[in-house]
Amino acid sequence: MLKLVKTSSRKAGLPPGSPVFIGERVTEKFGLDMVDYDAENLSLSTPVRLDEFRLLKETPSNTWIRVHGLHDAEAVDRFCLEFGLHPLTIEDILHTGQRPKIDHYEEYLFLVINLINYDDAAREMSMEQISFVLGSNYLLTFHEKDDDIFDDVLARLETNKGRIRKLGTDYLLYSLLDRVVDNFFSVLEKIGEEVEDLEEELIAAPSPETLQAIHSLKREMILLRKSVWPLREVIHGLQRDETTFMGESTRVYLKDLYDHTIQVLDTVETFRDIISGMIDIYLSSVSNRMNEIIKVLTIFAVIFIPLTFITSLYGMNFNTGASPFNMPELNWYFGYPFALLLMAGTLLSMLVYFKKKQWF
Amino acid sequence: MLKLVKTSSRKAGLPPGSPVFIGERVTEKFGLDMVDYDAENLSLSTPVRLDEFRLLKETPSNTWIRVHGLHDAEAVDRFCLEFGLHPLTIEDILHTGQRPKIDHYEEYLFLVINLINYDDAAREMSMEQISFVLGSNYLLTFHEKDDDIFDDVLARLETNKGRIRKLGTDYLLYSLLDRVVDNFFSVLEKIGEEVEDLEEELIAAPSPETLQAIHSLKREMILLRKSVWPLREVIHGLQRDETTFMGESTRVYLKDLYDHTIQVLDTVETFRDIISGMIDIYLSSVSNRMNEIIKVLTIFAVIFIPLTFITSLYGMNFNTGASPFNMPELNWYFGYPFALLLMAGTLLSMLVYFKKKQWF
Amino acid sequence: MLKLVKTSSRKAGLPPGSPVFIGERVTEKFGLDMVDYDAENLSLSTPVRLDEFRLLKETPSNTWIRVHGLHDAEAVDRFCLEFGLHPLTIEDILHTGQRPKIDHYEEYLFLVINLINYDDAAREMSMEQISFVLGSNYLLTFHEKDDDIFDDVLARLETNKGRIRKLGTDYLLYSLLDRVVDNFFSVLEKIGEEVEDLEEELIAAPSPETLQAIHSLKREMILLRKSVWPLREVIHGLQRDETTFMGESTRVYLKDLYDHTIQVLDTVETFRDIISGMIDIYLSSVSNRMNEIIKVLTIFAVIFIPLTFITSLYGMNFNTGASPFNMPELNWYFGYPFALLLMAGTLLSMLVYFKKKQWF
Amino acid sequence: MLKLVKTSSRKAGLPPGSPVFIGERVTEKFGLDMVDYDAENLSLSTPVRLDEFRLLKETPSNTWIRVHGLHDAEAVDRFCLEFGLHPLTIEDILHTGQRPKIDHYEEYLFLVINLINYDDAAREMSMEQISFVLGSNYLLTFHEKDDDIFDDVLARLETNKGRIRKLGTDYLLYSLLDRVVDNFFSVLEKIGEEVEDLEEELIAAPSPETLQAIHSLKREMILLRKSVWPLREVIHGLQRDETTFMGESTRVYLKDLYDHTIQVLDTVETFRDIISGMIDIYLSSVSNRMNEIIKVLTIFAVIFIPLTFITSLYGMNFNTGASPFNMPELNWYFGYPFALLLMAGTLLSMLVYFKKKQWF
Amino acid sequence: MLKLVKTSSRKAGLPPGSPVFIGERVTEKFGLDMVDYDAENLSLSTPVRLDEFRLLKETPSNTWIRVHGLHDAEAVDRFCLEFGLHPLTIEDILHTGQRPKIDHYEEYLFLVINLINYDDAAREMSMEQISFVLGSNYLLTFHEKDDDIFDDVLARLETNKGRIRKLGTDYLLYSLLDRVVDNFFSVLEKIGEEVEDLEEELIAAPSPETLQAIHSLKREMILLRKSVWPLREVIHGLQRDETTFMGESTRVYLKDLYDHTIQVLDTVETFRDIISGMIDIYLSSVSNRMNEIIKVLTIFAVIFIPLTFITSLYGMNFNTGASPFNMPELNWYFGYPFALLLMAGTLLSMLVYFKKKQWF
Repeated sequence: MLKLVKTSSRKAGLPPGSPVFIGERVTEKFGLDMVDYDAENLSLSTPVRLDEFRLLKETPSNTWIRVHGLHDAEAVDRFCLEFGLHPLTIEDILHTGQRPKIDHYEEYLFLVINLINYDDAAREMSMEQISFVLGSNYLLTFHEKDDDIFDDVLARLETNKGRIRKLGTDYLLYSLLDRVVDNFFSVLEKIGEEVEDLEEELIAAPSPETLQAIHSLKREMILLRKSVWPLREVIHGLQRDETTFMGESTRVYLKDLYDHTIQVLDTVETFRDIISGMIDIYLSSVSNRMNEIIKVLTIFAVIFIPLTFITSLYGMNFNTGASPFNMPELNWYFGYPFALLLMAGTLLSMLVYFKKKQWF
Repeated sequence: MLKLVKTSSRKAGLPPGSPVFIGERVTEKFGLDMVDYDAENLSLSTPVRLDEFRLLKETPSNTWIRVHGLHDAEAVDRFCLEFGLHPLTIEDILHTGQRPKIDHYEEYLFLVINLINYDDAAREMSMEQISFVLGSNYLLTFHEKDDDIFDDVLARLETNKGRIRKLGTDYLLYSLLDRVVDNFFSVLEKIGEEVEDLEEELIAAPSPETLQAIHSLKREMILLRKSVWPLREVIHGLQRDETTFMGESTRVYLKDLYDHTIQVLDTVETFRDIISGMIDIYLSSVSNRMNEIIKVLTIFAVIFIPLTFITSLYGMNFNTGASPFNMPELNWYFGYPFALLLMAGTLLSMLVYFKKKQWF
Repeated sequence: MLKLVKTSSRKAGLPPGSPVFIGERVTEKFGLDMVDYDAENLSLSTPVRLDEFRLLKETPSNTWIRVHGLHDAEAVDRFCLEFGLHPLTIEDILHTGQRPKIDHYEEYLFLVINLINYDDAAREMSMEQISFVLGSNYLLTFHEKDDDIFDDVLARLETNKGRIRKLGTDYLLYSLLDRVVDNFFSVLEKIGEEVEDLEEELIAAPSPETLQAIHSLKREMILLRKSVWPLREVIHGLQRDETTFMGESTRVYLKDLYDHTIQVLDTVETFRDIISGMIDIYLSSVSNRMNEIIKVLTIFAVIFIPLTFITSLYGMNFNTGASPFNMPELNWYFGYPFALLLMAGTLLSMLVYFKKKQWF
Repeated sequence: MLKLVKTSSRKAGLPPGSPVFIGERVTEKFGLDMVDYDAENLSLSTPVRLDEFRLLKETPSNTWIRVHGLHDAEAVDRFCLEFGLHPLTIEDILHTGQRPKIDHYEEYLFLVINLINYDDAAREMSMEQISFVLGSNYLLTFHEKDDDIFDDVLARLETNKGRIRKLGTDYLLYSLLDRVVDNFFSVLEKIGEEVEDLEEELIAAPSPETLQAIHSLKREMILLRKSVWPLREVIHGLQRDETTFMGESTRVYLKDLYDHTIQVLDTVETFRDIISGMIDIYLSSVSNRMNEIIKVLTIFAVIFIPLTFITSLYGMNFNTGASPFNMPELNWYFGYPFALLLMAGTLLSMLVYFKKKQWF
Repeated sequence: MLKLVKTSSRKAGLPPGSPVFIGERVTEKFGLDMVDYDAENLSLSTPVRLDEFRLLKETPSNTWIRVHGLHDAEAVDRFCLEFGLHPLTIEDILHTGQRPKIDHYEEYLFLVINLINYDDAAREMSMEQISFVLGSNYLLTFHEKDDDIFDDVLARLETNKGRIRKLGTDYLLYSLLDRVVDNFFSVLEKIGEEVEDLEEELIAAPSPETLQAIHSLKREMILLRKSVWPLREVIHGLQRDETTFMGESTRVYLKDLYDHTIQVLDTVETFRDIISGMIDIYLSSVSNRMNEIIKVLTIFAVIFIPLTFITSLYGMNFNTGASPFNMPELNWYFGYPFALLLMAGTLLSMLVYFKKKQWF
């Protein structure tokens, strides 16, 4: 299940801008993947010495560096300082579990977003923070894990498909964000299926586990929404950005991306509404079940209580010899058949009563 | 039932602007219906070769082309490219299940809206995406299915009724949108009847099926609202549009259309409120029913338990011969009548008790 | 009960601006009442020929024409065209059940509002659409029925009370709107009394009918709110109006009217909140009642079950002659009194138990 | 209890600005208290003739006139006209139960606010409308009753404490409003205590009366909120006022007053949230109680039903002489002890069962 | 538990700006801690005479004075007057329980915030008001108690870590606020753990105490939110501040701080949503439990009622000698085995019935 809060108490008391990693310490090595490209060429080599990165900033070609393994805070810090990132930026990169946001620095744009993955087997969501630093001709992406979310964008770069090689790192950033938003759609699709499964389960055979599932779905929606609302702001901020990092030609794509984000949000809200309604259905089906049980109890009790009364009546030990008034029925020739008929009559009138009350 | 999410995972990973059809593959052929008209003339012929369309753009007459059968993505793509549409526009046309929106391009306005139909027999809503491309003297509409929603607008064009032939494609666009909004009213009217039917059912004979019906109605309201809210924004955007696609004379009609959309929204919200209240009524009527059952059980039990106790008492086998204290009642002359009177008295006091408690 | 939606499907497919009457066809004749007045004179005659109305527009005196009997769409249409009203205006006048709104035309202001009446006997609200057309020196009002809502304003005109004769048709419009808002207060007052009646009923003797009443009250609040929210916008629009139809001296009165509308809205919202709370109270009182019933059942069962067990015990037929262990109690001298004492003791301890549990 | 709506129907149909008193007719005489002061002098005399008031407006000293006993509408009307108040102002003063508001007139500022008092004994709130008219060197306050809310401000004036004598009537107005807001704090404090009392009662011994108390508290919060929200707007309006009635030096105090009003609002909203939660607690404690009762019933029934079955079994009258199969137990030497042991065993296994189910 | 309202009635009636302490009177001495620093030097001495403070304002070095022990209102008042603070500022400092706010004075900025602490042992939150006065080269902080919240910031000053000594008091203010916001994260982390504990408890073994815990958590969230919402406004106000108190270089840090505050708010809202959902789960688990109990009762009753009826039947005392119709079964050779078999058959069919109803 998604953690509600990341352990950030480790940081409390440190000066602002301290490079401390906050997050789950996945045992993963720090690593860099670099792509250097322009419309004609593309190379995948990675420099060994950190100061070579500085030279890259001067070349006219576009550079995308993908950094993963954030728990090695020191290595990330050194790499970032080489690119001249602000201490607050480095802190935000390392302190995962941030709220998505966009920060405008003089030399670069800084974006934090949350990537949501849905594990089909466990029917659970997991969240990863991805940070983007967009400079004039470079783009840095920071990943908690060595995920493969951007592999198909890389493939498009390599195969020179579409207009991705012709345009700058701003279009690359857009392509990556588009990939992230598409991923939200995939997650929502799976959740949509789960919602529909639960709706059927609710009608067919609701159990306390169904309610558990609804509750955890609702909780996931709450956390999903917490990731998407600020993402919307981030993309809106990117769209209205007045710096020169986002080119004019990319802006029309951002409008489209923004519309998609709104659609994700709409769907999240719709799911929330539907899931809320499911709890009512569940509670009411529990009531119905209790009703059924109590009805069975009542029918049995109401039928047999008078019958048993009659049998008890004729089980009394009044001395029939002491007086002609003392239970003469016991000595009647048709005493027993009379009693049985009495009971049959009682039974019948009960059944008629229940029929009238529509209990059958 | 309306699908919550369209399968869009097929698209994830493709470059933005890929012409892939997303939606239910209705087995329908790709088709074009063309109307070319001005105040005097109207022709219904459709060119066979795609490049003839390009010539149409140069003629002063107005052209309305209705495209249906979107699942043939390739044919749609070819047609759209002929009209110089942006790849993102083509993607949005093909990727049905979009959120209604308006996009401003240099050469045309692009609108996506959702048409809601209500199937009387199945008491279910269905949704179809319709896209509009409004150029200076042409209007393209893209339909998932070969629906007949715009047939009466076409009839008006043909019969030259009202001012539709005198004005440009902007007024035609308004007329089509007006038709779509009128369709929402028809749907709401039917839903209103269903709501009123359900309200009566709730009072007369509520059953678990009633709750199911309320829930699915609520769900439909959620999805309807999801279509109408952005439609409102679209029409508002059209109204405030500063390009030259929308003529000044059409703008006054858009204000009216906008008011109608607000009225649709108001009605949807009202229905949502009323439906929410119905769930309370349902739950309470279930409680009332349970109350009734438990009351019957209690009345029977409380009446017969003391009576049966008395009969059991005189069914004890104490040896009346061993002592004068051992159940002398059994040998009394009026023992049995005494016992019967005791029971009748108990019964009477129980009935008085229930009367006082107002259980009858 | 108020209809949720007016039948507007009759209109779907017609060109925008078609003069078709939508609403309940009250069998009422089309009629006109005309008042022509200035500070000195007032006449109540009505011209017979429609073209005489055109002349009226040129005279400097103020003219108020009250049109009722809208179901005669043709007559209304002819009358409106004589005054040069826009087809959309005529459509809105005839298509009752509109959302209150204000439209600015070059030659006149057009207002639609809903008048709510409360039928004391049936404890039901009814709604009537009233449309206003304010020209430079004339005011037209369109009524579904021949209602008497504006009779006291007319009386003020006739008796020349207050400043109504001295000021123009804009002040007359204000006076009529003020009358409509005052009417809302009257309705709210009656509903307030009903709410207080229901609150008392809830405490004294809640029944399923009480819930029905709460529900229908809630529904009325929803529909009332739907009429008042846009009315607020209409009056706000009138206040900020920059055309010359509303004189400066009337504007200060509009501010006051606006405040009253806000007060109406506030009260509606307050009622909604209070009514929502009442449903909780109702449900809880139903639970309490069920509790009471189950408590009675339990007390009876728990007292008599052990007693009946004892009687059953001594009703067993073990052969006391076969062994000294077989139910020697039956042959004791004080066997029966012993059994009675045993039962009395059980009864007492039960009563003590219930006392401790505070069930009495 | 606070009335939901004041009877305003008496006014419907009268021309706007009619001086009619709307409110509860407390039998109280019309009265005036006047204070005339500047930094050096202060006098408490009240002129007898109304036209003397007009002279007061010309003197440079500050004048505060407190008017009470509004039900004498005619006297109030005459007094107000003497001060040149607008008919709408007079109407608002007399028509108590107004929504708090601020009106800007050329010659004065007009404020209406609601004073809330809390009656400790009856645990009930009552509301009084106070109207303020702030001219350049005079302040009029209109009170429904001869209340003592402003007595300590008067005392401060008389004893020349703080800066109140040095500054103008605008500071006096601020001081009075500050007194009103402080009064809200006192009311909230008492309600806070009541909330905490109720929370304890909820845990210790919830009864239907507790729910009644919660409901009436909720209702009071709704009405309190209805008074405070517009008060906030009034003070905000005063703060942003661009006329010369509010001096620059007083404005800093208004900011502080505004903050206090926000704090009152915050507290009201917090109470509302907490009270809403209490209803859940109540309903759940009712359920718990019902659970307890049903558990007791079930334990008794489930223990005794099998026991009674055994005793009934051996109460059957099969003829043991007719066959060795017919209830030989009855003739066993240890027949009765065997039956008793059987019952003890059943009892024990029941107890073990309940233990396992954790019902003890 | 957090008090809902601080006792402020003591103040009602006093002139605005009266230096009266409102809050819990912790028996703590008034005290001052002073730090005087610039990039090179730092001294911790505190002047004995109040007028020495005035000289400090003229020195170019930065001064931070931490004042604690507010209940000594007179001492605080004297100290504040020495620094030229406005009476309203002094009132706000002493009147703890303020809503967080920012006030702009000509000579200083005044901030009030609430510090929330979480007591691990008692699982309770406590609140302390901290006020800040930021002048051009001095910062005053006022604490209710002698807390240690800012000790690590002081340590950073002393050890000259980070850029804190190089920058002015505005950066110091930021560092302190950052510490306060970090503290919110710590509190939320602990509450997050509590929420997760409660969620597990809800599934495993819900008890009325669980609901109590949920309710008090919900209440804490309400109060926490009441502190954080205005804090957000305060930091936003600080960020947009146009005076010269906040240097340009500190502003970028404020943006970061603002983002953190939004994240705190988001988390509080998320917790509120999750906690609301937990109440549904609790209520439903209570229903489930009741269902279980009623099911057990019903199974026992429904099984034994017919069995006991059969035994009662053969316990009737009809005289078998009087007629061959009178209970011949009693004299059958296999009478008793027949009765036992009859009962076994009834038992079996009951079990089959329950199996079919899925009650096992």
